Amino acid sequence: TGRQARNYKIGVIPGDGVGPEVIAEGLKVLEDVSRKDGFTYELTYYPYSAQHYLDTGETMPKAILEEYRTLDAIYLGALGDPRLEPGFIEKPVIMGLRFGLDLYINLRPIKLYAEQFCPLKGKTPADVDLVVVRENTEDAYTGIGGIFKEGTADEVAIAEMVFTRKGAERAIRYAFDLARRRNKKKKVTMVDKANAIRPMDLWTRTFAEVGEEYPDIEKEHAYIDAACMWMVKNPEWFDVVVTSNLFGDIITDIGAMIQGGLGVAASGNIHPGQISMFEPIHGSAPKYAGKGVVNPMAAIAAAGMLLDYVGERGSAARIESALQAALTSGKIQSLGADSGLSTSRVGELVREALG
Amino acid sequence: TGRQARNYKIGVIPGDGVGPEVIAEGLKVLEDVSRKDGFTYELTYYPYSAQHYLDTGETMPKAILEEYRTLDAIYLGALGDPRLEPGFIEKPVIMGLRFGLDLYINLRPIKLYAEQFCPLKGKTPADVDLVVVRENTEDAYTGIGGIFKEGTADEVAIAEMVFTRKGAERAIRYAFDLARRRNKKKKVTMVDKANAIRPMDLWTRTFAEVGEEYPDIEKEHAYIDAACMWMVKNPEWFDVVVTSNLFGDIITDIGAMIQGGLGVAASGNIHPGQISMFEPIHGSAPKYAGKGVVNPMAAIAAAGMLLDYVGERGSAARIESALQAALTSGKIQSLGADSGLSTSRVGELVREALG
Ligand SMILES: CC(C)[C@H](C(=O)O)[C@@H](O)C(=O)O
Ligand SMILES: CC(C)[C@H](C(=O)O)[C@@H](O)C(=O)O
Repeated sequence: TGRQARNYKIGVIPGDGVGPEVIAEGLKVLEDVSRKDGFTYELTYYPYSAQHYLDTGETMPKAILEEYRTLDAIYLGALGDPRLEPGFIEKPVIMGLRFGLDLYINLRPIKLYAEQFCPLKGKTPADVDLVVVRENTEDAYTGIGGIFKEGTADEVAIAEMVFTRKGAERAIRYAFDLARRRNKKKKVTMVDKANAIRPMDLWTRTFAEVGEEYPDIEKEHAYIDAACMWMVKNPEWFDVVVTSNLFGDIITDIGAMIQGGLGVAASGNIHPGQISMFEPIHGSAPKYAGKGVVNPMAAIAAAGMLLDYVGERGSAARIESALQAALTSGKIQSLGADSGLSTSRVGELVREALG
Repeated sequence: TGRQARNYKIGVIPGDGVGPEVIAEGLKVLEDVSRKDGFTYELTYYPYSAQHYLDTGETMPKAILEEYRTLDAIYLGALGDPRLEPGFIEKPVIMGLRFGLDLYINLRPIKLYAEQFCPLKGKTPADVDLVVVRENTEDAYTGIGGIFKEGTADEVAIAEMVFTRKGAERAIRYAFDLARRRNKKKKVTMVDKANAIRPMDLWTRTFAEVGEEYPDIEKEHAYIDAACMWMVKNPEWFDVVVTSNLFGDIITDIGAMIQGGLGVAASGNIHPGQISMFEPIHGSAPKYAGKGVVNPMAAIAAAGMLLDYVGERGSAARIESALQAALTSGKIQSLGADSGLSTSRVGELVREALG
């Protein structure tokens, strides 16, 4: 097509539980679109997972970050295993990637494809179409803090929420640019809790200052408690939402629900211009592992986001259309593990829709 | 009726905006039930509000706490005024009460009275019937932290989340006792984020330990992001939810939505056995102030919780039934300010239902 040969180096971390099952479906879609759209890719698999830790004692070595930096993107399944403490493997792998590669944007498109999958009354696909930009490297996630007099009646635990001007500014700027690019409601809603957590005033001020550079974009503010209410009551009020790490974690999961559940929700962990990571937002779902019943659409959507990020916009758009077609085909009645459709059957339906 | 004369000393802080309007309706209900149920009460009004601050320069003096301690309960409207910085008046009054009187339980019954008011598909009053026990004196609300290099590109803001064994334990114990007393699903769900915020492990361990004293109560754990999803998808999974201050703030507001909105949601700020404070959870709603359009049911429900707390269980139950009757009467189509019914008309409907 007159364009140069396009080849992408993709790292794959299938992870635990249902991770490998859904990633397998995403990779089949990747293969299909690459053939149709004329690009190539090389996959490098990385074994980091609970099983790998149990076998070798290794979580994810810091040194591997250098190798990752030679890739274009990472495609990740899910981490976590009931044989380990909560967070034990999630932290070194997921946080290791986010912090180690400074993936400072967690991008969560929230889009309802078919009314029937929305748990809210009277909301149509036009009402649920927003993007959350979650700051991804600061806040209560830094690991700063600890426990004093652990296990005694006098025990005190402290976790520090750390916010920086740099961190808030780059997230906020990304959100404004995105609202412009989307060209929909052209609105950015910033969510904080500065009325109770005074230091979050840093976010309030940064939003006001950066906002001045975007006179064409409407600015709105909401406290996290109110924002969560609006998500349930009036999701149509949102276009782009920008918020800190912890509140972003919460609001994106509410977002997943209103778009139909974890079966369809994907996210990007992005450092613009550098290697970035894409994942379904669901976990490893140990109780479904090996059963082939989990919906792979979230992983397929994550593959779409990955392609969009590396520059294959056409393929990304075709994947999105295929997901939408499959979801509105009437062939899928539920997006949960109770759908009666196997993981690979749903993957097949999406690939059929790809044409 | 053979019982001793019952008299209660109640402090009233009408506050700002719509606060005085809704409190007025709550007080009319209080008068009605006191006459019928044979108790008396003395009201002492306190002026603390944005207007009082603007007039006098005083927010809420610490010294008043001594006087409050001679009361049985405080009935509060709402605080906040756009002429002041966010949190400027809310903090000294609401936080002043919570911290100053060590009101360590924030109690939020979440009950749907009529299906039509629920924004979720297919949920009936039987599905939305839970109570959130929010720890009310710790976490990111202590005010510990600050801002370094404010206003520069190097600005860093820190807010400390502080958790203590004592604080977690008394909230958790209250939750277990409540699940027993409710005698419904007999389940307590503890919500934290210990997978990312390791010090919150204090909550995880305390829940496990205290839980051993309650073999008759089912224990369940959820991370805050998952818990918010369940609130939207499966509120029927919950009975009693216990969580830390910040997550409690968020989850109780989602709870307000699924029970029909801020028009009906009330809370108690409680130190068992001591003076406690009851309030609608909505704010001062400046844009509706003076218009007489805001639904007073939340304030009326708060009056019911106050009476339950001081020991007038019969009156409290009658208020709850009256709210339910008014809500299912077909006379109220919306619980928002757009209902077409005035604040006093809705108050009247509740009093009519009281009989
Ligand atoms: C006013 C605000 C600081 C307060 C809080 O966050 O606790 C309010 O949202 C509440 O829930 O009572
Ligand atoms: C696994 C967990 C620590 C993680 C987070 O809180 O960020 C997850 O919920 C997510 O949103 O990716």
